[in-house]
Amino acid sequence: MGKRIHNFSAGPAALPLPVLEEIRDELLDYKGAGMSIMEISHRSKYFDDVINGAVDRTKKLLGMGDDFHVLFIQGGASLQFCMVPMNLALEGRPVDYINTGTWSTKAIKEAQIQGRDVRIIASSEDRDFSYIPRGFQVDGEASYLHFTSNNTIKGTQWPEFPEAGDVPLVCDMSSDFMSRPIDPRPFGLIYAGAQKNIGPSGCAMVIIRRDMLDRIPEGLPTMLKYSTFSEKNSLYNTPSCFVIYVIGLVLKWLEEEIGGLEAMETINREKARILYDLIDGSGFYRGTAEKASRSLMNVTFRLPNEDLEDRFVGEAAKKGLGGLKGHRSVGGCRASIYNATTLESVRALADFMSHFEKTQG
Amino acid sequence: MGKRIHNFSAGPAALPLPVLEEIRDELLDYKGAGMSIMEISHRSKYFDDVINGAVDRTKKLLGMGDDFHVLFIQGGASLQFCMVPMNLALEGRPVDYINTGTWSTKAIKEAQIQGRDVRIIASSEDRDFSYIPRGFQVDGEASYLHFTSNNTIKGTQWPEFPEAGDVPLVCDMSSDFMSRPIDPRPFGLIYAGAQKNIGPSGCAMVIIRRDMLDRIPEGLPTMLKYSTFSEKNSLYNTPSCFVIYVIGLVLKWLEEEIGGLEAMETINREKARILYDLIDGSGFYRGTAEKASRSLMNVTFRLPNEDLEDRFVGEAAKKGLGGLKGHRSVGGCRASIYNATTLESVRALADFMSHFEKTQG
Repeated sequence: MGKRIHNFSAGPAALPLPVLEEIRDELLDYKGAGMSIMEISHRSKYFDDVINGAVDRTKKLLGMGDDFHVLFIQGGASLQFCMVPMNLALEGRPVDYINTGTWSTKAIKEAQIQGRDVRIIASSEDRDFSYIPRGFQVDGEASYLHFTSNNTIKGTQWPEFPEAGDVPLVCDMSSDFMSRPIDPRPFGLIYAGAQKNIGPSGCAMVIIRRDMLDRIPEGLPTMLKYSTFSEKNSLYNTPSCFVIYVIGLVLKWLEEEIGGLEAMETINREKARILYDLIDGSGFYRGTAEKASRSLMNVTFRLPNEDLEDRFVGEAAKKGLGGLKGHRSVGGCRASIYNATTLESVRALADFMSHFEKTQG
Repeated sequence: MGKRIHNFSAGPAALPLPVLEEIRDELLDYKGAGMSIMEISHRSKYFDDVINGAVDRTKKLLGMGDDFHVLFIQGGASLQFCMVPMNLALEGRPVDYINTGTWSTKAIKEAQIQGRDVRIIASSEDRDFSYIPRGFQVDGEASYLHFTSNNTIKGTQWPEFPEAGDVPLVCDMSSDFMSRPIDPRPFGLIYAGAQKNIGPSGCAMVIIRRDMLDRIPEGLPTMLKYSTFSEKNSLYNTPSCFVIYVIGLVLKWLEEEIGGLEAMETINREKARILYDLIDGSGFYRGTAEKASRSLMNVTFRLPNEDLEDRFVGEAAKKGLGGLKGHRSVGGCRASIYNATTLESVRALADFMSHFEKTQG
């Protein structure tokens, strides 16, 4: 095996090394089955244990009881953008959205395609999505209030979730899912593409509060109804077995090696602090998000000019620090520091940034 | 590593051993990237090569030109059951279906949920789906003619595809895709869940003829339009990267190790011949499908009684022959012998069957 790099990719992203080693070691023979996990029936006892283990661990980590269902649905967060209004919009009632960037905008567009009465009750578009809106009103009329908890492209994150009274929150938590403890009670539905914090790409985890299942209208296609998944423990058809298996291993690592979500948040805060302190103490690097709205997952920053940014990304790559280019839609630099990115990797990046500033600044 | 079994599962199913070994060997460091393939951005050169390689190999193996697009869509064949009529039904024209079992029935149901004018122009339901219909009429009115090329549960397979004139064929080829050469020209669309013949579960391959893209109506959700996938080479959002990577390796094995689809068909015919000859030469085992409609992929058979069937499946498992239980909806026994199931495995099964007959019969 060659040397592993420090991986700051925005997703698909770093996975915990012990998880990768376990996958490798049992790839040809899963727990004595004489088959790879990829070759085992989703109707087997082996796979029942895999999927039930992932569901149980999710509920335990998030402090959820039996009023929540944990579902595995293919198609990523992008398919959820259309499934959410299809399933949860109430007849004659608006659907409320908060727009904090590219992914919120896409979620809004899918609700509009369906002809829903979409109200954008808050937005940070006026300042290029560089902050999380505050002081907006929620009037209690809406079917739900949708927001994006962390914005990978602009590097912002909700420090606290919006208050919406009796209106259920619906959250695209793709890029900070399982990075900190949450109070699940206000959420009607949480969804997260796996490929940032909990596994490889190819599956979204969807957590739905039991009462939301009563809203699902007649006549939806079978594969677009949440009830199809909740009634069959995500086994109506063949699920993304390998991805669910890896998610289960990542959650085990999170619980047993890291010690749960409070411990994970402490580590994540320390990783972010190292990079933001370096940026703030520098006249060379400049953070792009408003300080109070900064993401603990995606640290976005600029250098004095684009030439320097290109050189920064290129030299970093040569030193084994990968994935630091900003999203193609905004440019600049971005260090994604999800759960599996280690403190050691962050310190290596900080050292490189200090060194680069001294030699180029 | 423990001993690998002979795997006759219906899907997820056996994968070629050299493919599994390659995955294992590069699991922590994909081609010197210093990352697992699961950790690499879908916008990277590495992944471009993966997905383009899989597309190119598919077209080469199937003898397809630029008039076909190869797409990777999550959600399995079950999501295709609803996407097909959504995208391909023409205004004011019926959609024709042939019903050959469980999967056809599900496809028909999804078209009916959408309120399409569904005509079932042929069916083998009268004799428990034990044969492939013949002598039906296609009148040229339909938007498309949908059929299931191989029926995993009942063990039947179309020996030749239906003739439909100018009506484009739409085929669920999940369980015999890439098992034999086909003439692609009559097909408007082919779809196949990966987990039988070409990879792990979590992705369907969809092949769409260019002219079908003109049918897609306005107003569909973005993730349910084939054009979203064809315009972005299946990279509108993050695809199922790992599954696509494995599919690419399986197709490489099929082309380079096996020698393409004609060579594959020869091997598949020999595997099926061994088992059907044994069944036909026995007074103990009884095939459940009509001889002219027998599947080369799923050999379904019964023993004199259910007790013997249970004992057969149990003793086979002890000898390292797994996955021989029939589908839970029909009982009996089934040996699935997809591309990756070796002649050696089939011979081991035949030996066991002969031995079991002698000692129990």
